[in-house]
Amino acid sequence: MGLREVVSDYTVSLHYDRRLYRQDIAGSAAHARMLAKQGIISEADGDAIVNGLNLVQREIEEGKFPWMPELEDIHMNIERRLHELIGEPALRLHTARSRNDQVALDVRMFVKEAITEAIGALHALRSALVCAAEANPDSAMPGYTHLQRAQPVLFAHHMLAYYEMFSRDAERFSQAFARADVMPLGSGALAGLPYPIDRRFVADQLGFSRISANSMDAVSDRDFLLDFHSAAAICAMHLSRLGEELILWSSDEFGFVRLADAHTTGSSIMPQKRNPDFAEIARGKTGRVYGSLIGLFTTLKGLPLTYNRDMQEDKEGLFDTVDTLLATLKIFSDMVADMQIRRERMAAAASEGYLLATDLADYLVAKGMPFREAYRIAAALSEEAGRRGLGFHSLPISDYKRYSPLFEADVYGITVDRSISLRDVPGGTAHGRALAAIGAAKRQLEAEDESP
Amino acid sequence: MGLREVVSDYTVSLHYDRRLYRQDIAGSAAHARMLAKQGIISEADGDAIVNGLNLVQREIEEGKFPWMPELEDIHMNIERRLHELIGEPALRLHTARSRNDQVALDVRMFVKEAITEAIGALHALRSALVCAAEANPDSAMPGYTHLQRAQPVLFAHHMLAYYEMFSRDAERFSQAFARADVMPLGSGALAGLPYPIDRRFVADQLGFSRISANSMDAVSDRDFLLDFHSAAAICAMHLSRLGEELILWSSDEFGFVRLADAHTTGSSIMPQKRNPDFAEIARGKTGRVYGSLIGLFTTLKGLPLTYNRDMQEDKEGLFDTVDTLLATLKIFSDMVADMQIRRERMAAAASEGYLLATDLADYLVAKGMPFREAYRIAAALSEEAGRRGLGFHSLPISDYKRYSPLFEADVYGITVDRSISLRDVPGGTAHGRALAAIGAAKRQLEAEDESP
Amino acid sequence: MGLREVVSDYTVSLHYDRRLYRQDIAGSAAHARMLAKQGIISEADGDAIVNGLNLVQREIEEGKFPWMPELEDIHMNIERRLHELIGEPALRLHTARSRNDQVALDVRMFVKEAITEAIGALHALRSALVCAAEANPDSAMPGYTHLQRAQPVLFAHHMLAYYEMFSRDAERFSQAFARADVMPLGSGALAGLPYPIDRRFVADQLGFSRISANSMDAVSDRDFLLDFHSAAAICAMHLSRLGEELILWSSDEFGFVRLADAHTTGSSIMPQKRNPDFAEIARGKTGRVYGSLIGLFTTLKGLPLTYNRDMQEDKEGLFDTVDTLLATLKIFSDMVADMQIRRERMAAAASEGYLLATDLADYLVAKGMPFREAYRIAAALSEEAGRRGLGFHSLPISDYKRYSPLFEADVYGITVDRSISLRDVPGGTAHGRALAAIGAAKRQLEAEDESP
Amino acid sequence: MGLREVVSDYTVSLHYDRRLYRQDIAGSAAHARMLAKQGIISEADGDAIVNGLNLVQREIEEGKFPWMPELEDIHMNIERRLHELIGEPALRLHTARSRNDQVALDVRMFVKEAITEAIGALHALRSALVCAAEANPDSAMPGYTHLQRAQPVLFAHHMLAYYEMFSRDAERFSQAFARADVMPLGSGALAGLPYPIDRRFVADQLGFSRISANSMDAVSDRDFLLDFHSAAAICAMHLSRLGEELILWSSDEFGFVRLADAHTTGSSIMPQKRNPDFAEIARGKTGRVYGSLIGLFTTLKGLPLTYNRDMQEDKEGLFDTVDTLLATLKIFSDMVADMQIRRERMAAAASEGYLLATDLADYLVAKGMPFREAYRIAAALSEEAGRRGLGFHSLPISDYKRYSPLFEADVYGITVDRSISLRDVPGGTAHGRALAAIGAAKRQLEAEDESP
Repeated sequence: MGLREVVSDYTVSLHYDRRLYRQDIAGSAAHARMLAKQGIISEADGDAIVNGLNLVQREIEEGKFPWMPELEDIHMNIERRLHELIGEPALRLHTARSRNDQVALDVRMFVKEAITEAIGALHALRSALVCAAEANPDSAMPGYTHLQRAQPVLFAHHMLAYYEMFSRDAERFSQAFARADVMPLGSGALAGLPYPIDRRFVADQLGFSRISANSMDAVSDRDFLLDFHSAAAICAMHLSRLGEELILWSSDEFGFVRLADAHTTGSSIMPQKRNPDFAEIARGKTGRVYGSLIGLFTTLKGLPLTYNRDMQEDKEGLFDTVDTLLATLKIFSDMVADMQIRRERMAAAASEGYLLATDLADYLVAKGMPFREAYRIAAALSEEAGRRGLGFHSLPISDYKRYSPLFEADVYGITVDRSISLRDVPGGTAHGRALAAIGAAKRQLEAEDESP
Repeated sequence: MGLREVVSDYTVSLHYDRRLYRQDIAGSAAHARMLAKQGIISEADGDAIVNGLNLVQREIEEGKFPWMPELEDIHMNIERRLHELIGEPALRLHTARSRNDQVALDVRMFVKEAITEAIGALHALRSALVCAAEANPDSAMPGYTHLQRAQPVLFAHHMLAYYEMFSRDAERFSQAFARADVMPLGSGALAGLPYPIDRRFVADQLGFSRISANSMDAVSDRDFLLDFHSAAAICAMHLSRLGEELILWSSDEFGFVRLADAHTTGSSIMPQKRNPDFAEIARGKTGRVYGSLIGLFTTLKGLPLTYNRDMQEDKEGLFDTVDTLLATLKIFSDMVADMQIRRERMAAAASEGYLLATDLADYLVAKGMPFREAYRIAAALSEEAGRRGLGFHSLPISDYKRYSPLFEADVYGITVDRSISLRDVPGGTAHGRALAAIGAAKRQLEAEDESP
Repeated sequence: MGLREVVSDYTVSLHYDRRLYRQDIAGSAAHARMLAKQGIISEADGDAIVNGLNLVQREIEEGKFPWMPELEDIHMNIERRLHELIGEPALRLHTARSRNDQVALDVRMFVKEAITEAIGALHALRSALVCAAEANPDSAMPGYTHLQRAQPVLFAHHMLAYYEMFSRDAERFSQAFARADVMPLGSGALAGLPYPIDRRFVADQLGFSRISANSMDAVSDRDFLLDFHSAAAICAMHLSRLGEELILWSSDEFGFVRLADAHTTGSSIMPQKRNPDFAEIARGKTGRVYGSLIGLFTTLKGLPLTYNRDMQEDKEGLFDTVDTLLATLKIFSDMVADMQIRRERMAAAASEGYLLATDLADYLVAKGMPFREAYRIAAALSEEAGRRGLGFHSLPISDYKRYSPLFEADVYGITVDRSISLRDVPGGTAHGRALAAIGAAKRQLEAEDESP
Repeated sequence: MGLREVVSDYTVSLHYDRRLYRQDIAGSAAHARMLAKQGIISEADGDAIVNGLNLVQREIEEGKFPWMPELEDIHMNIERRLHELIGEPALRLHTARSRNDQVALDVRMFVKEAITEAIGALHALRSALVCAAEANPDSAMPGYTHLQRAQPVLFAHHMLAYYEMFSRDAERFSQAFARADVMPLGSGALAGLPYPIDRRFVADQLGFSRISANSMDAVSDRDFLLDFHSAAAICAMHLSRLGEELILWSSDEFGFVRLADAHTTGSSIMPQKRNPDFAEIARGKTGRVYGSLIGLFTTLKGLPLTYNRDMQEDKEGLFDTVDTLLATLKIFSDMVADMQIRRERMAAAASEGYLLATDLADYLVAKGMPFREAYRIAAALSEEAGRRGLGFHSLPISDYKRYSPLFEADVYGITVDRSISLRDVPGGTAHGRALAAIGAAKRQLEAEDESP
């Protein structure tokens, strides 16, 4: 396990924080321009720094940058290389800045980008769900509670339930974005800086809406990461629920969907298998996302102000969750778009058994019986029908009448389709409601497209 | 441990969900009024139900309600008692409703109230912090990074860092409130209802801004609880940091504050002790708050739609976190308000050691030296002074000049007070900035008072 | 929410730690006897204390004890009442003792009892699993990987997989017991005590195997609780897996078991439902158990030595997990014992589809073909059969031979039963192996009965 | 963030599971030898496979192995390369084996090695603690409760408290080892295998003590990883406590130790800083270790039998925790070994204030006063002395006598040293006890060295 190396680089973060190179360079360039504008360094030095940073970025992106792990982190690697490239002006770059506000800046910029991507990926998944709903507007399926068949619903209505969840996720991420969108540079190590800096100029250059209000808070604060992790964990939970359903639905027992070949894999030993591996891995990755959330919470617990090196541990879990989340959202967009709906299996399952028992009770209520009494009768009828192995439609009217004289021939008009149609309330599964919800979702998605 | 009873009530939730009685009754009354308004039940039945529910509430609040654990939960206890009190109309109350949307309603109402209280408690704590800052506008203390003395700051500035954290918490809670503020009744068991209900009327009656958009989502969704737990956990983390500092500051070694007698306790064996028990318990309770967050996340992971009984487990952790959070916020308001600041100890600590080394470097930068070079010289000076056991002010100018000819007599003008004054940037610790921040905070708190 | 009271009792633990009354009294009695034996207090005082404690215990158990929340905890309540009952000698009880070692003692005694009960409850569950296996020795069912039907297995073999898990749990709990079985009294507040105490005598009186080796560790250590929580969380995870399977198996789609009426409940609105609520709640409670584990881990993180009041927060999660675990284990013993196995449904599911594809491959390997090649052919055959809607037994031999000349008429001898029989390796599902495993498990359970 | 690649390799594990190459090759070689021994493949094929695997291992270790990410995992990479190198016999390697039992084997072998290394690293840390104790046998320091000075203790006694914690960790890891030490190969995909395999032979070849008892359990079981993570998390908690103390002790306020230069770092802006970064990072990493624990618990929750692809997510957290733990243990061994103890600062702190108040109370008890009364008097004396700014030794005897006539001149014999000496009970801080504990620890460490 190579203990020796592991130890020698205990404080080294370069292997993961190099991922922040773009943010670090952009932040340094904005800082240098501000220093020059304010006369803290000369215009010539400012230009030299900005040009040098461009060179550094090109070297990194072309794979030519001479990384030095012994310099520990991305910041010192860039600053030292800048010095090699441009000489003395590089020594002035860190004027009126500290590692503490610099790293806070870089991470905030990274999180803002990650959230923007996450919201985009959520948009794609929500669109895929609406498409699946729209493509199957009339398919009935059993709605479940307790994983027991409960009442018939439209498949479209089921898809739209997930649309709601992922829409809330998008809102939550946009609130996390706003809390990350605060520019910390100018806080120095912890107390602010004794230079005539222009913090708003830097914020404008880097696309930040606000600047931080308290320097000690600014270098200690990782709330914006907790906001991100928390939004990601809720989103991962939603994905785990959808994943669970796809796994159930592609089992032999349910058989409601057939996932695309691209989203199943075979077995190393059982030739007949079509395993829903992508959905399973996604469900499994929930653990990592939850783990990184609780990990950061643990790290921050009980830390005195201001910056403590413990906070360096904020990055690996962040990167892992960003990658996991974006990839999983993309996978689900594809899985939902490409899966084949087995309408006849769904419809058959919806019409078996006693999913219409609630409708029987409501039938009696409509004829004036108090609900609790109607409920009792419908339960007894279900029980008897089950015992005799009959469906509600095979039960003679005389048997119905044994339970209540209110039953008449129109009781046979209770069908899956009618049950669905009757649930014609805001949020209900009736066909018209589902169509309206699809329309509203599409308008919402388009509106987001236009004003991102 | 009484295993027998424990088991017999495995599904019973009455011992904790009775706490929802007010919400359950208010929800049922609004539902009954709507049923009557829509002609689903008669006006007379509607009135009987509403009056009966009032009676039930009075019985509960007067301790006269005949609780029946065998009915398992608060909902059935109330409905059965209503039946005893008013007879047949009670059997019509559950028309066009299900336990699934009913419990979602109750919990949402509870969370909305809890959040309102939390925001109020945060307001009090933020006020206490601003008061403490205002009462000690000029007190200097060491600012720390890595728990090492770093640079002098104002105690007021330190207090205001916490003001920022708790202000973010208030914002986060208000966003959680908005997500809880969605009325689910009318979703039925999962599919909507076959009755001409008026969901917006119920929402208006109960003070909800919106109604849920998808019935399957509405009975499956506990995101609003995760939002609450997450906001609470971040707030608990902030409290744990403040708690840690109060514990450090009341140690013999720091000695920066003396907590009020009411917030310390003695020892059962060591007569001299003044233990900061309240701050410690608060810090310890972070564990329970985190635990309830991860507990709910775990419970929800991988659940297929729609309602599953697992979700009953959403309440105990919720109640525990609500109680913990509100009590801890109140405790901290009092601790901050009542603690005695030991200004002289703080000031002495700020002037010992080499907290002004950064200022030495900045002094050289101001005279034209590149920062990295100035930094190197200040480091060498600190090292030499430390080795010789001298403070910066005791070091003769000739020694300074050995390091750089730029040093002149005005180097002795670098003092704690001047160091603070120079950090005159937005968010910095300079006296004027701190005063302005206090003013802004007070205006903010007043504005919140006026438009709650 | 009664903020006022909540706050006034922030440090009060009586409402939960009164549960430790038996342990506290037994510990105090043993301590008093030791003090008297060592001549630290008089024999008369020792007798008075022990008799007084007996009185106190009787008062508590008869519901006559005058609880005083203002005394905060169980320890002071008992000591004060003792003073009322016996006067001055009570003032000598706390000689050579501190709250810190006293509470460590009480909690260790409680955990030891809880673990003993848990091991007993696991024994009952393991017995129920073995019974279920023994009662259905020949029932075949589909074995699943990825929730896809994979290969036929015996239902008995499936039950025994859980037997293995819960046997590991029992072992893990017994190791946790051994780590709790260390007597801390005599550590004082943190440094030991200046009295000629006899710690081993106290340990013997209270049934402890060892005494603690370092006083500072003894009052700081809560590892034994983490050991308990960790064992409980692993056990809860196992229960969640079994719960998941019972939920799946009682769905209409699987239909492998019918849970007893006592373990299902109806719906408030859908009369036909038989919801597996007990299994669902059990699965849901996994969250609380995990939460309490991570809660205690969080609380203990970063605490300096020795006792800190944060550690008071170790009890509520403990009590909750003990109750949850014991009740859930009991519920599962009953559910497994009382569930009805639907053998014909299981058998039908095992014989549908292509669960025997692996056997086809192994058939070719037995005739000399390399496994990877045989695998490829079996996969192609499954694919073709599936496309043509035929089972393996309906496929003519000529079709087999198109894939390989090695196929002969004996290929039709591949049946569910033969597939199972052939897996005749240690740990395999062959009938004889399952019977042997049942026998071994029964002997193991009996052996545990005899030497608990 | 390169979404495209991220997605294309969603199911690919090669980038992390290649770390298992040694285990995978050793497992395959043992399997091939067994197949040949049992006549399932020919001797010649067996030899070819074993030799080919040796070649593969050499290629990997020399960096010449042609990795193919499109083959997804380490297992297929090795098997395919083997085929390239040796042809047809490679196609027979996977006979009587499945990916499911293969990966279980590899991970178990890896964990066993990791635990062995962890126990070794714990041995080194325990030795360093005992050394530090032995090198400072008489140094007194304040013992703390609630971070308040409580009673004097020996620094050696404090170090030995950690020795106890880490000794428990070693025991816990050795129990986790035993649970990992079970050979799963031969379980096949889930049901066992239809070949005359010899599982015990494979176990012996690979150094396993036992073979798994149930094939379905064997491929589903990851308890041994939870055991490892749990032991690691408890150990990380201990390290976080020691880290916290080192951070406190190296603060200006405590000043009890000076960490070696190698274990502190400077600041990018404050030249005078000596930050305890290693201890901070270690404390911070507690979060990741806890996170990986809860992550795996989450992943496993509610999974039906047997193997599900979710379980692939067991590896990254494992590798991270192994690396974190081993490196951190090594760092702490070095930090403890190299830190400089500032004995005079410790001693001064122990003699300031009222740490001897408990001794005053015990003094009165020794003269016959009941403890609770003596306690009250000592508290009053401390309070008065504190108010008058006097130490106990400066208080005239007449003042003592005002509180109790039992006080005599020998009250001035109560000193730090005597207070320590008097705590002469098993586990107490008295000098002789500490020396004996050091001796016992050294013998224990040596005994472990001899029989590892």
